This record gives sequence, C-alpha cells and structure tokens, in this order.
Amino acid sequence: MKTAIFGIGLIGGSAAKDLRAAGFCTEILGVGRSAANSQIALDLGLVDKIVSKDEAIEQADLIILTVPVNYLIDELLYVLDKAQPHQIITDMGSTKGHIIDAIKNHPNRRQYVASHPMAGTENSGPLAAIDDLFRDKVCIICDKENSNKEAVTLIEKMYKTLGMRIKYMEAHQHDMHAAYISHISHISSFVLAATVLEKEKDEEAILEMAGGGFESTVRLAKSSPEMWSPIFHQNKNYLLEVMDTYIEKMYHFRNLINKNKTEELTKFMKDANEIRKILK
Amino acid sequence: MKTAIFGIGLIGGSAAKDLRAAGFCTEILGVGRSAANSQIALDLGLVDKIVSKDEAIEQADLIILTVPVNYLIDELLYVLDKAQPHQIITDMGSTKGHIIDAIKNHPNRRQYVASHPMAGTENSGPLAAIDDLFRDKVCIICDKENSNKEAVTLIEKMYKTLGMRIKYMEAHQHDMHAAYISHISHISSFVLAATVLEKEKDEEAILEMAGGGFESTVRLAKSSPEMWSPIFHQNKNYLLEVMDTYIEKMYHFRNLINKNKTEELTKFMKDANEIRKILK
Repeated sequence: MKTAIFGIGLIGGSAAKDLRAAGFCTEILGVGRSAANSQIALDLGLVDKIVSKDEAIEQADLIILTVPVNYLIDELLYVLDKAQPHQIITDMGSTKGHIIDAIKNHPNRRQYVASHPMAGTENSGPLAAIDDLFRDKVCIICDKENSNKEAVTLIEKMYKTLGMRIKYMEAHQHDMHAAYISHISHISSFVLAATVLEKEKDEEAILEMAGGGFESTVRLAKSSPEMWSPIFHQNKNYLLEVMDTYIEKMYHFRNLINKNKTEELTKFMKDANEIRKILK
Repeated sequence: MKTAIFGIGLIGGSAAKDLRAAGFCTEILGVGRSAANSQIALDLGLVDKIVSKDEAIEQADLIILTVPVNYLIDELLYVLDKAQPHQIITDMGSTKGHIIDAIKNHPNRRQYVASHPMAGTENSGPLAAIDDLFRDKVCIICDKENSNKEAVTLIEKMYKTLGMRIKYMEAHQHDMHAAYISHISHISSFVLAATVLEKEKDEEAILEMAGGGFESTVRLAKSSPEMWSPIFHQNKNYLLEVMDTYIEKMYHFRNLINKNKTEELTKFMKDANEIRKILK
C-alpha cells in the first residue's frame, strides 16, 4: 500500500520502519515541515522520497498525520479538502476532542479515523525513530462510528501490524483519560526536573544520586516542548482539574511531614501503593 | 569473612546474594525483626542461619545494618556498645545526619562506617532480593575521616565487590542532596499515584493509558511506606524546602496553561530539558 506520512519524527519514523518491515507499506512518501529533518528521514531510509503535500495527496492510498497537535487540524482539513474517494486518512495525535470537533461536518469526514497510539519515548525527530516502538502497547481509536467501516478496518489492521492492542473511546472521554493519566505524568516530571535544577546546584551530585529513583521519574522531562505545549493547551480544561488535585495532595503530603503525622503519612503512601493492583 | 546482616529485605538480601557469590562472605548470619521474613530469608538461602542480635555480635567480623532508618540508631548503638575491637560495622540507610549525630561520641565510633548504596527497586522484603542490584550504581560513604582506616578500606572493598562506584560526602550534605534529588522523586511519584487514583475512576483506562509515560513515572509510588515514612521524617527540613519549590513550580506551570502563555510554557519545558545534559 502506497502510504504518505506527514511528519517523520519519532512517531511517524518508527511507524514507517515497522510498516515497511512487515510489508504493509510498499512505498512511503514523506511530507516534512523541516527540510533538514526530511533529508535525515530520507538518508535513514525511513521514507522513499520527500514530496509536497499535494503530491502526497495525489499519490497515496493511506495518509498518516503525525505532526504536532497544533498543526493537526489545519493539515487534516487540507488533506480532507483534497482527498480522493478511495483514500483513508488517520492521525496519531495525543489529543482528540479539538480535532474531531473541527472536522465533524466535513463531507469527507468518514474517510478519516481518529487514533492515538499510546507509545513514545522522551526523544523526538527522525533520529529517534526505532523498531518496535508500538509493540504490545495500546492504540485508542475514537468515535469509530463516524468513520467508514473499511477505513476503520484498514487502520485497525495497520495498528495490529505494529503489534498494538486496540481500544475504543469517545474523543472527549479519551482526552479526559489522557489528561488524568498520561499528561499529568509528563507535567509532574517537567516540574521535578525544574525543581531539582533550581535547588541542586551541584551537577555531580545529581549524577551520583540519579540512581535513587530520580532518573526514571524525571525521564519524561526530556520530552519535546514543541510537541507537548500544544497538547497541554488543547487539553487545558481536564488538565487544570487534575493539576489542582495534584497540587492539593502535594500540599497535604507536605503538611503531614511538617506536622510529624507519621500515621497519616504512612496511610497516604499505603493508599498510593494501591496503584500496584492496577498496574500489576 | 563471617558477616551478620540485620534486616534481610530487599537491600540486605540482595547484598547477601552478591557478597556470597563473590566469595566475600564465608558465612552469613541473619538478624530479623519478623520471624516470617527471617524464615523466608533462610529458605531462599540468603542467610546460613538466623541468630539473635547478641549471637551475631559475638560471632561476626562484619556487621551490616539494613533495617529501616527509624530503627537504625537504636540498632547501631546496641551493636557499638557490645562491639569487639576487631569488628567493623556499616549501615545502608538513606539518611545519614541523624545517625551520625547520635553516635558521634561513642567510644567505638571509629569501627563504624556510614554508607548509603544508591540502589533499590520499588519492592521490599526478602522475596524482593535480586542479583546485581548494586552493580554500576553509586555508593556514598559519609564522614570517612571519623572511621578507622581499616574499617573504611573493608567497606570500600565490600561495595566494590558489589560493583559500585564510591563517592564521599559529609553526612548533612548527603541528606540535602538526597532530599533534593532522590526523596522528592519518591514524593512526586506518591502524589501522582494518589492523584490518578482519586481522579480516574476507570481502572481499565489506567491500564490502557499506562504506556503513555504513567507507568514509569509512578513506579516509585509502589515503594514501602514503612521504609519511606521515617526517611521523610528524618530528612524533614531539607524536604520541606524542596517540596515548597516543587509546589511553587507546579502552580506556576498550572497558571501558564490557564493563561495560554504558550511561549513561557515552552520555555519552562525547554529549561527542564536541561536535565538531559546532566543525565546524558
């Protein structure tokens, strides 16, 4: 299947690798915003050629949008406006409500499947693309009843080819869950990094002490601001809610330590331990 | 070398495994607070026998204390009071200032080496003991000038046998760095778990979304409250400082999202990205 990928970074590049290796894609056309990254994607063999948007829309059977979410609505509208009847379009963005609301009345809406593969690393760009990024992870498809059946079937097949388990959600429900679970994790990690960098002036000490849990907890703070800033913006309402709960609990934890309330502090942590039961 | 380990959990048990495998210990005596865990340690072959404190002090050449930090001062004083002149004693606790202050005038002070191997997992108890827990991690030895040279040499040799790199710090400096880097990481993770458990009532969604960074960021929230509560208590002063900075920064991050200050939000994250330069 001739496939065009808009945005050949960590996500688009990793998808390209696996879809090509599995024989799902016969040819991969890359559409990039940056000439330098496009050249890297070409040199790495992630894509067969770099083309313009219009060339991609003329030639591809499947169009995958993996640009940051602030570009996604414009890119999707551009593609839907020019889409040929046989083409199927999906995106891999981390927020879904805004994009689905923006295209809901588009005449070609049903050729588009909204999806969010829950996979990634703290790295970005085509050099960060790796094999098997998606394997054994979960992909969420949103509002599938608003897409053509054959479009959903193809996109499901694509994610299964990547090794993913598929779940279904309504778009705004997806955004709420993403805010409450994934996005707040990124924020707590960014804030942890900012705090440690401000308080701890001894960089050697950071390196020496990193093994005590800091390194893994702060990993997400290495993530791309260009990617995450628009996600936080689009998911603002749910995020403010969960951040307020987080701040309240952090403040409570602080006061339990301050007032030497050992029993209550232990109980707080025992309750937090319950996360074991869910994550195994 | 005949070795006694007080507290055969994750840390003591893992040390026992590697020190025996390397031939550093010829016989390992276990001293446990819980009869059930002592039996498990014996069944797992972590220790050769379970003995009383007094038997351990009579027989061992090397005594390693790996009990939670709230028991550490009493245990160390008990051991130092009865220590024979040739015996060498160390501990593996996560706080160092309180314990060193408590024993600084003890006549047998110089037989004791204060150390903190920066290694662990979110699990606890003898069943959590694993091979190579300490390999390639950092061990911090505190106030070594207050210990006998031969004691320091033996403890350094022990940690090198475990595969650790050794660094030296003053005890209160250690506690400050530990609060600013390791302990705040644990707290941010406990608070993340508590927040997600409160806001997100759909356990299946937590499991489905966990791959989006939540699982690794929340890992430390599985840690033992019995171990961490006394650490937070003993390291209260430095912790309150760093927690206040954390809360302030989280609140600032919240307001940047709330007020749509995209540029400042991106800058906050770019600054946090600097952690990459330190951790590689």
